[in-house]
Amino acid sequence: MNNLVKIAVCQFKGSMNKLENINKAKEFVSRSIDKGSKIIVLPECFAVPYEINLFSQYSEKKLDSSPSINIFRELTKDKSDIYIFAGSIIEEENNKLYNTCFVYNNGNIIGSYRKNNLYKINLKEHSFSEEAVLSPGLEPTIIDTIYGKIGIGICYDLRFPKLAKYYQENGCKLIIYPGSFNRITGPVHWKLLQQARAIDNQLFVISCSAASNNEMKFKPYGKSFIISPWGAVISETQLDSEEEIVKDIDLNMINEIRNKIPILEN
Amino acid sequence: MNNLVKIAVCQFKGSMNKLENINKAKEFVSRSIDKGSKIIVLPECFAVPYEINLFSQYSEKKLDSSPSINIFRELTKDKSDIYIFAGSIIEEENNKLYNTCFVYNNGNIIGSYRKNNLYKINLKEHSFSEEAVLSPGLEPTIIDTIYGKIGIGICYDLRFPKLAKYYQENGCKLIIYPGSFNRITGPVHWKLLQQARAIDNQLFVISCSAASNNEMKFKPYGKSFIISPWGAVISETQLDSEEEIVKDIDLNMINEIRNKIPILEN
Repeated sequence: MNNLVKIAVCQFKGSMNKLENINKAKEFVSRSIDKGSKIIVLPECFAVPYEINLFSQYSEKKLDSSPSINIFRELTKDKSDIYIFAGSIIEEENNKLYNTCFVYNNGNIIGSYRKNNLYKINLKEHSFSEEAVLSPGLEPTIIDTIYGKIGIGICYDLRFPKLAKYYQENGCKLIIYPGSFNRITGPVHWKLLQQARAIDNQLFVISCSAASNNEMKFKPYGKSFIISPWGAVISETQLDSEEEIVKDIDLNMINEIRNKIPILEN
Repeated sequence: MNNLVKIAVCQFKGSMNKLENINKAKEFVSRSIDKGSKIIVLPECFAVPYEINLFSQYSEKKLDSSPSINIFRELTKDKSDIYIFAGSIIEEENNKLYNTCFVYNNGNIIGSYRKNNLYKINLKEHSFSEEAVLSPGLEPTIIDTIYGKIGIGICYDLRFPKLAKYYQENGCKLIIYPGSFNRITGPVHWKLLQQARAIDNQLFVISCSAASNNEMKFKPYGKSFIISPWGAVISETQLDSEEEIVKDIDLNMINEIRNKIPILEN
């Protein structure tokens, strides 16, 4: 069985202009598809400035006509072997806002994940609380693809090992984390915690961050990674570059490593 | 409240000669005490060659007269503020063998931990299964010291996040891991997983490895660490050096970091 799957991680800068952001996402995804990618990942809030007081204004409902949704339905139309994990948008439903990752395949939304663990941080240089305007999702999401099961977390979710463990215990081969870590904790924790989730659960971890745009208030730590079940960095973006990294991963590696270090027995 | 505690991590080489090893441990501990250390950590199997077929021959019963036990009772006599986490010995009880960490204070054994997760690895270059001769301990161990609660894991236990989480949930401020990782997984996993346990549980992680001795069959990855709740390396040994690292840690850092990144709320 061929277990090679081509992954694309699209790191790019967002601006204040939503349609411009969506068009940029379209460019990156189109190019990734042209390169043969089957699983394509975008950054958290790829079309939305990461500012609490703007979330409502930039939010969208889950409607086929919503611009951020429409574009990915089009991009995957008649493509049954391509999956887009479209970072996240601010989703509005019944007057509540969520930080939501929609997943597209074959022209349809085939699943979605609402960030379970809302971002909260109190640093001298940077404090933030998503709770002020967002509602948390209440459950994990597993997407059953033709390549295997895939779990989703968004950014701060990475700090919660329980979520990753849930995905491992339920048969996921990959966990995908769209993210936007800040530039204080990012350099020390973002990569390291991805490696830890990969090593502890012996599966692939894929992250996709936005790149920093100096004109925007919030400046994410613009680094994205493809991490093997051994914890090795298979591929990574340059800091704050706009680029898609496209890489084959070999899913056989999961069982190989589970046999080598049998920590998941029992 | 003064929350500074001086920690000593004693990394040294073992030989085939048990009494020589015990005397070396004595030297390192004595010097650490002279430097003002209050919590002193030794390597896994510090007096025992790490070879399955030698464990029985080098094992000891939990008796005051056993050489590895006797020495640490003496070293802590009348010292109520000093705690020795004496790496591990192979303990024999009722014809079963355990990989056990004894903890000493004020001339007494005040607790012990039997390795819960027995080492099992199947690499081309190195395979090992402690199960062949050892029995697993069945529970975690928390030592209630005058500096706060301390949890213990031994080597391979580091791969099990559940154990570390148990210690955090039960109020531990430090987790101590005597260890002897191999030289294949060591360089990629030993430090990184310590950092991950520290970051995820927002507490200090302290490890102590043996240094490699070229005359011995098993050559550990001789690196030892003191890791902060932020995941930063506060101090580390040189690869395979014989040295004690002695460092003050500030326990206030735990609450500071838990306030900054409140992942342990709820």
